[in-house]
Amino acid sequence: MEKAQQPYPPVALLTDFGERDGYVGIMKGVILDILHQAQFVDITHVVAPHDIAAGAWILATGYRYFPAGTIFLCVVDPGVGSERRPLAVHAGNWLFVAPDNGLLSYVFTEQPVHKIVLLDNSSYHRPLVSTTFQGRDIFAPVAAHLARGVPIQSLGTTLKKDALICLPGKAAHRQEKCVYARIVHIDHFGNSITNIPASLVPDFFTSPTVCLSFATGVTVTERRHFFADQAATEHEGPFLYIDSAAYVGIAIQNRSVATLLKLQVGDAVTLVMDDK
Amino acid sequence: MEKAQQPYPPVALLTDFGERDGYVGIMKGVILDILHQAQFVDITHVVAPHDIAAGAWILATGYRYFPAGTIFLCVVDPGVGSERRPLAVHAGNWLFVAPDNGLLSYVFTEQPVHKIVLLDNSSYHRPLVSTTFQGRDIFAPVAAHLARGVPIQSLGTTLKKDALICLPGKAAHRQEKCVYARIVHIDHFGNSITNIPASLVPDFFTSPTVCLSFATGVTVTERRHFFADQAATEHEGPFLYIDSAAYVGIAIQNRSVATLLKLQVGDAVTLVMDDK
Amino acid sequence: MEKAQQPYPPVALLTDFGERDGYVGIMKGVILDILHQAQFVDITHVVAPHDIAAGAWILATGYRYFPAGTIFLCVVDPGVGSERRPLAVHAGNWLFVAPDNGLLSYVFTEQPVHKIVLLDNSSYHRPLVSTTFQGRDIFAPVAAHLARGVPIQSLGTTLKKDALICLPGKAAHRQEKCVYARIVHIDHFGNSITNIPASLVPDFFTSPTVCLSFATGVTVTERRHFFADQAATEHEGPFLYIDSAAYVGIAIQNRSVATLLKLQVGDAVTLVMDDK
Repeated sequence: MEKAQQPYPPVALLTDFGERDGYVGIMKGVILDILHQAQFVDITHVVAPHDIAAGAWILATGYRYFPAGTIFLCVVDPGVGSERRPLAVHAGNWLFVAPDNGLLSYVFTEQPVHKIVLLDNSSYHRPLVSTTFQGRDIFAPVAAHLARGVPIQSLGTTLKKDALICLPGKAAHRQEKCVYARIVHIDHFGNSITNIPASLVPDFFTSPTVCLSFATGVTVTERRHFFADQAATEHEGPFLYIDSAAYVGIAIQNRSVATLLKLQVGDAVTLVMDDK
Repeated sequence: MEKAQQPYPPVALLTDFGERDGYVGIMKGVILDILHQAQFVDITHVVAPHDIAAGAWILATGYRYFPAGTIFLCVVDPGVGSERRPLAVHAGNWLFVAPDNGLLSYVFTEQPVHKIVLLDNSSYHRPLVSTTFQGRDIFAPVAAHLARGVPIQSLGTTLKKDALICLPGKAAHRQEKCVYARIVHIDHFGNSITNIPASLVPDFFTSPTVCLSFATGVTVTERRHFFADQAATEHEGPFLYIDSAAYVGIAIQNRSVATLLKLQVGDAVTLVMDDK
Repeated sequence: MEKAQQPYPPVALLTDFGERDGYVGIMKGVILDILHQAQFVDITHVVAPHDIAAGAWILATGYRYFPAGTIFLCVVDPGVGSERRPLAVHAGNWLFVAPDNGLLSYVFTEQPVHKIVLLDNSSYHRPLVSTTFQGRDIFAPVAAHLARGVPIQSLGTTLKKDALICLPGKAAHRQEKCVYARIVHIDHFGNSITNIPASLVPDFFTSPTVCLSFATGVTVTERRHFFADQAATEHEGPFLYIDSAAYVGIAIQNRSVATLLKLQVGDAVTLVMDDK
């Protein structure tokens, strides 16, 4: 498809700054002061405060839908001001500016990493860098300079990928018919997403039966292709589905399954595919 | 007034996706990947989950203030993945992309409808359409293509207006001095809006007395032209007014009248204009 | 640094309109209808309803980071429709559109005020001005006209600065080693900010001891340069710091100090710098 010309790539923002205090607006003001034509997309600013794993998951479900060249400005940063390192990363077709604390873990797993730079060239920072708001003083100006075309290698010292911090926590793993996994995200509707990628369970819809069980003893065995599945209308309880990011999820029509089943992020789950 | 040239109309978004999960950001990423210069305005993303009537009302109070040509991308869609039809609509001076579930009911009532199209031309969708996130896979790319100038009739098969789903619920109706109506919206401040248009009660301010009564027996008889009406400062209770969208509302100075009177959307109200 | 050309300055919005009702979107629609290329930045729309002091504080912490020429559209306006006056102000390098109710108090204190105009030239308003939504009918179109280059003096009658309404409440004051002050803001993380500017306490980090005390008898004596201060890791309680806007704040690592100590905006505090 023909695409229109745009001189500057968008800056997509993901933070735990909330929407009350104007911190996000300040970062955008700093960026606009460097690049007047900056274009912003807010991914979310209500990641639970300091919840790096939640921020990493939300970023992972979305970045691939943005245009090549998009700059992701990601700040969930409980270690602000400490020795944790500020980074710029070129991975896949995108650029990421974030603290080195695990926030980019899924990006590192999913995409080829072309370049990682420690943001130690202070000529691309604000003149006075505070100890408590480096989103404003380091990450925002660096994102602005990337958007206006400064090459990533100008921003500081190149780092190796294996020197970076990644989130703890095992990926889902499968042993024959059993998948051992956990809940990694509960969305706005209460839909609860596991870390079981669809690629790990190609037999999800073809297996005669499947059963997802929780530590509480609750099990879910209904499967649906979509929420308002006509073929399943007699069934009104929770069901399993493949969510829009291609992971196994648990939902219930028009209600919150997380509230109903008292689910929380981190809960262990086991999915059994049975050919009996 | 002279207006500056802008090659692309804005895309205004209204959803029940919430602000936590990045779903709205993903839709914008999809749009930017098709039209790099897209310009976004968020109307709201915190419509109560699956509350089509609330989404329809908020859209109705706002669309007319946007420039001619604006594309409204509206997704409150409990039937996603089912047989409910995805639509593009040219009504009045605007374009609307939405599911056929009643979300555009007020637009259909208020504006001449020039064209309705079923979105069955998949060349304007994402290559893989999920069953759970058609906002990303159908509605967003279609909005982007409309914004870059694709004619609405290219998007699919033309439908007739009378084939569409509209919200149930009667309009307010008047019998001589009595108007039978209901609460249709409670806003952020707790102001409670009825479905009584100002045009139905031209005698609202000239009638010697008016009385709005609830099923609970509570009545409100004070009228104000605006919230901080100087002439009414001795009165500290609830009052009636004509809201900014030109409907009769109930409010109280600096507090939530909905909390005070325990009002809910759907509550029946009767307004009596008395010339005694 | 070289800056790219941008014909129109951004419009930065700060309101108490919330995010549910579409009121902010309507204001943006009105602006886009006047200036198609308008660029928006949301500072916040969840100022507590009618809380002028909170809005004034959030504006004060952020405006200086925006490009020169930015238009701040600020609407926290419990007096809408009454005799309170609508203003446009040129102060420092920025333009402000707001009601005359104290919302710009800190701007007036911090910046040279070049021009104050009463918005009484109705040719820059919407044709019909409602009594309940002047954000839509007066403030938004005026901001749009400023953004497209209309000179501020065209918008109405010039006013004198001393005729304006400012927030009550004394600034923090120091008597030798004691600073008498109060909590003026509690942010999204629960960090609690006082009205003690760093410039009033140049000895904050060099004084042998400091002690902030509340009326409840609670005291905080720990000082940190940043939240994750390595040198202070044994200490797990509340600590004092200089926040990103250069005011003395109280925080605790990874939790809400406001919840822990039951702090509220307005609470009196005393900071004692001791050289013993």
